Amino acid sequence: MNPIIAIVTDFGIEDTYVGVMKSVILGIQPAARLIDLTHAIPRGSIRAGAFELWRAASYLPKGCILLGVVDPGVGTARRPVTLAFDELLAVGPDNGLFSYLLFEHRLLGAHELAAPELRLPEPSSTFHGRDVFAPAAAHLARGTSPEAFGPPVPQLLSLPLPVLRPIPGAIEGEILHCDVFGNLVTSIGRLELHGAALALRDWTGRELQAGLDARSCQLVLPDGKSLPLAHTFADVPAGAALAYTGSTGLLEIAVNGGDAAEVLGLNVGDVVRLSEIKG
Amino acid sequence: MNPIIAIVTDFGIEDTYVGVMKSVILGIQPAARLIDLTHAIPRGSIRAGAFELWRAASYLPKGCILLGVVDPGVGTARRPVTLAFDELLAVGPDNGLFSYLLFEHRLLGAHELAAPELRLPEPSSTFHGRDVFAPAAAHLARGTSPEAFGPPVPQLLSLPLPVLRPIPGAIEGEILHCDVFGNLVTSIGRLELHGAALALRDWTGRELQAGLDARSCQLVLPDGKSLPLAHTFADVPAGAALAYTGSTGLLEIAVNGGDAAEVLGLNVGDVVRLSEIKG
Amino acid sequence: MNPIIAIVTDFGIEDTYVGVMKSVILGIQPAARLIDLTHAIPRGSIRAGAFELWRAASYLPKGCILLGVVDPGVGTARRPVTLAFDELLAVGPDNGLFSYLLFEHRLLGAHELAAPELRLPEPSSTFHGRDVFAPAAAHLARGTSPEAFGPPVPQLLSLPLPVLRPIPGAIEGEILHCDVFGNLVTSIGRLELHGAALALRDWTGRELQAGLDARSCQLVLPDGKSLPLAHTFADVPAGAALAYTGSTGLLEIAVNGGDAAEVLGLNVGDVVRLSEIKG
Repeated sequence: MNPIIAIVTDFGIEDTYVGVMKSVILGIQPAARLIDLTHAIPRGSIRAGAFELWRAASYLPKGCILLGVVDPGVGTARRPVTLAFDELLAVGPDNGLFSYLLFEHRLLGAHELAAPELRLPEPSSTFHGRDVFAPAAAHLARGTSPEAFGPPVPQLLSLPLPVLRPIPGAIEGEILHCDVFGNLVTSIGRLELHGAALALRDWTGRELQAGLDARSCQLVLPDGKSLPLAHTFADVPAGAALAYTGSTGLLEIAVNGGDAAEVLGLNVGDVVRLSEIKG
Repeated sequence: MNPIIAIVTDFGIEDTYVGVMKSVILGIQPAARLIDLTHAIPRGSIRAGAFELWRAASYLPKGCILLGVVDPGVGTARRPVTLAFDELLAVGPDNGLFSYLLFEHRLLGAHELAAPELRLPEPSSTFHGRDVFAPAAAHLARGTSPEAFGPPVPQLLSLPLPVLRPIPGAIEGEILHCDVFGNLVTSIGRLELHGAALALRDWTGRELQAGLDARSCQLVLPDGKSLPLAHTFADVPAGAALAYTGSTGLLEIAVNGGDAAEVLGLNVGDVVRLSEIKG
Repeated sequence: MNPIIAIVTDFGIEDTYVGVMKSVILGIQPAARLIDLTHAIPRGSIRAGAFELWRAASYLPKGCILLGVVDPGVGTARRPVTLAFDELLAVGPDNGLFSYLLFEHRLLGAHELAAPELRLPEPSSTFHGRDVFAPAAAHLARGTSPEAFGPPVPQLLSLPLPVLRPIPGAIEGEILHCDVFGNLVTSIGRLELHGAALALRDWTGRELQAGLDARSCQLVLPDGKSLPLAHTFADVPAGAALAYTGSTGLLEIAVNGGDAAEVLGLNVGDVVRLSEIKG
């Protein structure tokens, strides 16, 4: 079977950066299949990259190699690494980019990309995507073992966890992502029903007791406005806002036929609350 | 031979939506070859999607699977379907998206995508591209027959036909598409010469008599301005407007080296007339 | 091994133009592997296309076919050609688009794309990317020899060389490219050290003596502002500007974490000077 490499960068697609990385990969492993997950991570936003890698990872074919390059510290001392998870390999900078993957995938080991013969000759100081990370992904796709790249990395950099906590009468979360349509993804999700009582797990898997009645919840925005919970866009009138369990299991905010971020004035990082409707 | 899946969506490429659909496809059928036709259909515009599917279909390899996801009614009662044409298969929502394909491709049968084992488990209510349509395209690419997906669909939803009709001394059509350069594609085309007399067929193949002399026609815009018919951009001076038979056989409007939509103030839906130049 | 076709156009990706070219290619040679280098060349800018083709070519797999379509003269007398280089083939219009490739790749021969059986039937006058160039690339990928396409082309169109010359106390160059982040690539590069004295070669390989001391150089902008030479972005404070040897060996201009084109008011074509810092 042909190995699959799925790519996330903040390079955009206007320039040839991504195409050149692919050229390098196919020069080393011509059988590789390449998937563009996204190249539109906001420039240098490691957290946005970590979110998209987490969100996509559950849908990747088993054995896939995740190549992530959001690397504002390129050319400095931050380590280039390869990570082996139970069903995935990953390649990129050790700057927290892969830390959200740990929520659902078991890390088997991490190794520094140090072996000069597994890089391009004379790597540049500003384009490790081409000179270090693409060759590493291609060599992994040829079957090179992670151990061959360099010494083990005992401790990886981690990003702060997304906000998700019970507060009196509510669950507090934050807006993690705004998509190109203005739909907003919150950190609130993985809700479990115990009878009618809502419980949830935090991002590390720990159970949290919220004590909410699932039949009467609403999502409250920073300005106090509240949104009904619905099933899909067309459950509310055109132009109306709703909250719904989105396609990754997290609560999302949308406007039917509109741009929720614009209409509701919401941004990534804003705090929202899932709470019971007061009688 | 490796099966080819050509994809049209309104998802954009900033988010991971398209990349995740491709991941799902390659997880089910790793040998599939994927072609991005466009992901820039205006959000929810079924008609724009139908036009692009029609326009691209003649150039697809035989046996290709067309995966079209422009689906403003996702999660409602609209049916997900697979269509078998004489040389193509198609997968997407039954909302009119494939109805322009019927102009040139013979429909052999349509089936609802109902079989749960040919979807992802627990489909979301807002991302059938990932959970229903991508798996269906991948299973077709593995050789699953359209009949295996569910019951036949006797009647498909159709969009209104593009405007194209003879009026006294002219043929009336509409602007169907504006490309990223501001070139405009009209519905007027497939013109046939009988001596010097122009005839045309409407979109369903019926012959229309226009009684125009092909040697002295011009294209008249809504504001009365008329454009000469030319062969290619460079036939008129830089900055000048022209009409010409575009690469799909339809009359197009362009400005040599400029943006016709902006310069001429034209929009999709505007009515134009092909008429004889008055002596 | 599957043949690789790397594509550069000014078509954008909003429309189906590129997807239809790929459909045509895979219809002729289903085994072809396709790499998008960029489709965001400024519309009709042959020079920008020539620069990107030059910049990407060193990283392409051996035997790769470069399909370049930046073709403002489509439908006029400009010749469609295929070029054989020592380790690459190229296909596109003979309008200078491939002339920068000659700096580093040896041209073995050029042939006109004249054979009608190696085009689509009835080529349009405005979309040779689909009707002439994509089929040619696909036929080359099937092993058709360049000679089979038509008569030899003895003399190719050339673009003016990028500005790069020694002036008293400095080397003068120009800004060749601005990337999507506002980083600027200059024509100054391939610098060689002889002791501490800087020498360089011009774009045709001829050696130029600049007589500069490499230990004390700076890059001077058109407004007289000078930038320090540094190794990578993080060598200067956030928001500060720097010059550095970029990933293609050319001096580049950036702002750490910012948009250099905007902050410094620079454009493609602006003249810059590498000169010694005056004591």
